[in-house]
Amino acid sequence: MGRMGNQTIEFLSKPKIIGNYSIVGEKEGNGNLKDYFDYVLKNDTFGEKTYENCERKMIEHAILNALDKSGLRTADLDLLVCGDLLNQIISSSFAAREFDVTFLGLYGACSTMAEAIAVGATFVDNKYFNNVACATGSHFSTVERQYRFPLELGNQRPPVSQWTVTGAGCTVIGEGNSNISICNATFGKVTDYGINDVNNMGAAMAPAAMRTLITHFEDTNTTPDDYDLILTGDLGKLGSEILLDLMEHNGYKLKDNYNDCGQMIFNNNQKTYQGGSGCGCSAVVLNSYVLKKMKEGKYKRVLFGATGALLSTLSSQQGNTIPGICHAVEIRGE
Amino acid sequence: MGRMGNQTIEFLSKPKIIGNYSIVGEKEGNGNLKDYFDYVLKNDTFGEKTYENCERKMIEHAILNALDKSGLRTADLDLLVCGDLLNQIISSSFAAREFDVTFLGLYGACSTMAEAIAVGATFVDNKYFNNVACATGSHFSTVERQYRFPLELGNQRPPVSQWTVTGAGCTVIGEGNSNISICNATFGKVTDYGINDVNNMGAAMAPAAMRTLITHFEDTNTTPDDYDLILTGDLGKLGSEILLDLMEHNGYKLKDNYNDCGQMIFNNNQKTYQGGSGCGCSAVVLNSYVLKKMKEGKYKRVLFGATGALLSTLSSQQGNTIPGICHAVEIRGE
Repeated sequence: MGRMGNQTIEFLSKPKIIGNYSIVGEKEGNGNLKDYFDYVLKNDTFGEKTYENCERKMIEHAILNALDKSGLRTADLDLLVCGDLLNQIISSSFAAREFDVTFLGLYGACSTMAEAIAVGATFVDNKYFNNVACATGSHFSTVERQYRFPLELGNQRPPVSQWTVTGAGCTVIGEGNSNISICNATFGKVTDYGINDVNNMGAAMAPAAMRTLITHFEDTNTTPDDYDLILTGDLGKLGSEILLDLMEHNGYKLKDNYNDCGQMIFNNNQKTYQGGSGCGCSAVVLNSYVLKKMKEGKYKRVLFGATGALLSTLSSQQGNTIPGICHAVEIRGE
Repeated sequence: MGRMGNQTIEFLSKPKIIGNYSIVGEKEGNGNLKDYFDYVLKNDTFGEKTYENCERKMIEHAILNALDKSGLRTADLDLLVCGDLLNQIISSSFAAREFDVTFLGLYGACSTMAEAIAVGATFVDNKYFNNVACATGSHFSTVERQYRFPLELGNQRPPVSQWTVTGAGCTVIGEGNSNISICNATFGKVTDYGINDVNNMGAAMAPAAMRTLITHFEDTNTTPDDYDLILTGDLGKLGSEILLDLMEHNGYKLKDNYNDCGQMIFNNNQKTYQGGSGCGCSAVVLNSYVLKKMKEGKYKRVLFGATGALLSTLSSQQGNTIPGICHAVEIRGE
């Protein structure tokens, strides 16, 4: 009961996605998916004094509005599952403080959106909790100054780099009127192919995505052709090409039904090189375009595998390579 | 089914603790609980070049030996639930890399041991997974240099401070021969009474502990007298006194059956001021003395509420106060 293969759990009660919301920065609001976001910021501070406060406020805003779209009041929310990229996930913890809600903090780097949905659906599936909000977000400027260089330095970005998405997304799982449900989740293993270039996250995460996707297909006895959309996030262009190669080497040919959140979000004129990244990237792509198209019936069966690079500035300074992880959830429309 | 009150979930299948292990540093090995730890390090590096690698290796060692004590091989492990205090929980992620195991990363600061057990028991209770390892750890020297000052500075520690425990603990939850089971879990809310002294963690976390304990008693329709041991971790001496005051103001008089992991671990001659702290503190106290006494039948009903301070150096530098959280699990012996 509830178990499928080695790493996959099945949600027999089919917990429903009863609300979702996305908020993005100005640059993201000019990208490919501009018509799908719920809210686009006019600047990168959202009226706050620091970028970190802006990140926190975006997450709060996403949670509050996703609840509203679910027809729930804050008091109806049983659990908030949330994480982010900042040290000690301060954006999530401080957002949770505003809601007076039971809080479960996660860390999965950019895999957080899928990890949170997998954990959230687990609590709803067994009727531990009725309504669970799963949220995450990121901000270009908080990540740049935490992981890389002060913005003021104006350093050059290498061609293999990705652009951290400014944005936050929230998915509410519960029992309401909805034609979209979470079927199963495949939790990932930490995977390290020895990449140590902190600018090349796509290459660091692609092997983890490969392992989780293949495990998912094996555990659920499916093939890539069974899905209307197989979505990784956020490998970017180079990472996606590496994933396609790795999958083909293992006998899986991903076709037109494959895409990557990092590839999708920005257009070619936006100079993001390999595309988007950050917890917010897959969060806002899922909670805008993808779920909209699922509601409309364009996609009926989606495999959403968010990927995370498990490094810190210290781990890299001390000479460690960059392990990756990918958690995947299967989402179905009716 | 499965739900008790507002914030508490009941594990109807009573998942069992089938193995546990604790490893500590030299100082902890000279403290009050010296006879109960499974392994005491002879120095603070464990043969590694960095303190961070030592922390990672302690977590690995705890997981490996907890599995061994559970009669499990690594291949039998379905899920590792783990987190720590370092930025981006690198100790946990890098430990998970060594095991080729499905990994769920958490962040709950020093509440991680209880948070991990609560999440781990959830997966076992609904038979999603059979065997789940829940682990965390901390290291005095990694935490000092990340949160406070370089050790080389030799700065003075204020009298309200606590001493970060060097150690790691692992609890394996599954279906085996054991007289100890997890009955329920009360997830906490982020609570902030406006403390901004980064040296006074006990005061920052005590209000969160109060809220979770009171909620737990209400949700489960119990009183403090129903428990053989009510254990917080890691409020320290001052934080515990604040908790006792706060509880009394709310009509709950905690008596001799109350203790705190931070208070218990060091003796008065060890100059730790308010006692121990860090993810490792409650992890090693639970996985040594407490579970040993439960196996022996001294304690039959234990409420374990681990507390975390949800700050980062940046959040404090930017003028934020320090929110706390407390997650609690009820553990029963037969």
